[in-house]
Amino acid sequence: MAEQSPEIKGGGSLILAWQVRNKRILMVGGGEVAAGRIVNLLNADAKVTVVSPREGLNPEVAYRIKHNQVTYIDRKFQPSDLDDPSIVMVLTAVDDPVAGSEIYKLCKEKRIPANIADVPPECDFYFGSVHRDGPLQIMVSTNGKGPKLANIVRRQIAANLPSNIGDAISQVGVLRRKLRKVAPGIEEGPKRMQWYVCAVI
Amino acid sequence: MAEQSPEIKGGGSLILAWQVRNKRILMVGGGEVAAGRIVNLLNADAKVTVVSPREGLNPEVAYRIKHNQVTYIDRKFQPSDLDDPSIVMVLTAVDDPVAGSEIYKLCKEKRIPANIADVPPECDFYFGSVHRDGPLQIMVSTNGKGPKLANIVRRQIAANLPSNIGDAISQVGVLRRKLRKVAPGIEEGPKRMQWYVCAVI
Repeated sequence: MAEQSPEIKGGGSLILAWQVRNKRILMVGGGEVAAGRIVNLLNADAKVTVVSPREGLNPEVAYRIKHNQVTYIDRKFQPSDLDDPSIVMVLTAVDDPVAGSEIYKLCKEKRIPANIADVPPECDFYFGSVHRDGPLQIMVSTNGKGPKLANIVRRQIAANLPSNIGDAISQVGVLRRKLRKVAPGIEEGPKRMQWYVCAVI
Repeated sequence: MAEQSPEIKGGGSLILAWQVRNKRILMVGGGEVAAGRIVNLLNADAKVTVVSPREGLNPEVAYRIKHNQVTYIDRKFQPSDLDDPSIVMVLTAVDDPVAGSEIYKLCKEKRIPANIADVPPECDFYFGSVHRDGPLQIMVSTNGKGPKLANIVRRQIAANLPSNIGDAISQVGVLRRKLRKVAPGIEEGPKRMQWYVCAVI
């Protein structure tokens, strides 16, 4: 059996789908980068708090504040912003690298995962280029080698997918739940399930 | 500008590329599920500690222990296993749901992100189906609707990618570093960079 152990190819990231529904995430900064991050966070149903002086707000961030899509604190970051024990993640996108580093250190003391934009050594995680179609999410990362290439690859993948794949996966989800009720354990037979799934697509 | 704010489509995950190189991750359990998790962790260069009685070890996990690819503790989990402040993440794959729940609670007290296999409400993050080609990583998630479908989509994507794409992205990474040296700021011109990237592929 030992010979069958898959070979390890280091140098990659650990790509994970975080479940942040109704969990609090602190976004420090309200510029263009923050605007993009906030879309990612809201698409995953996180509760987002934005800390940023109003004068530096990107119009899209201002729009989300105005429409109560995020909680807003109109000032610069203060260490006490991290006191809320419900915060599960901190993102910063500020032009001040010293401030970013300080926030990162405070997060590490409190064991809060953090991403300091544009400072890779101060990022517990990176963002990638994500395609979304209903329940289907496909994330492309080049591990920092070419962020624009990641976008190109993502668009190419999206163009090659069947146009109804999101709906098809939703339907498979419904059928799986029904199958489990009427025939618990049917998924133990991998061949039957796999055939079935192919037929649905 | 407000009209241009991208619409929010909730219900997704926050997919992130975690940087766990040389960071300690605790894997509780040593069965088949653990074997798969460990491959993911080692591919991202994490330092892995496996806690599991020797008699329950999967042959692949036993192989990795024997070859010192992971640190091994030959017993059941104890709460003191979480005392190591360098632990950034905890995964469990044990058949005992009560033990899993207890570990999850302890992790939450210590603010350590955790994944209790097969218990979605006790998972801060899910794993997905990942294609890897050098620096390129593509992760497919169906958000729990159809894990086997995720594998099918991943294989389909892999089959449609140019065969040399991993190498091409590596080369782009090298060229980007060189470009930054000889012409800092050239990437500010998105059109030039994008054309350039296409030409390399």
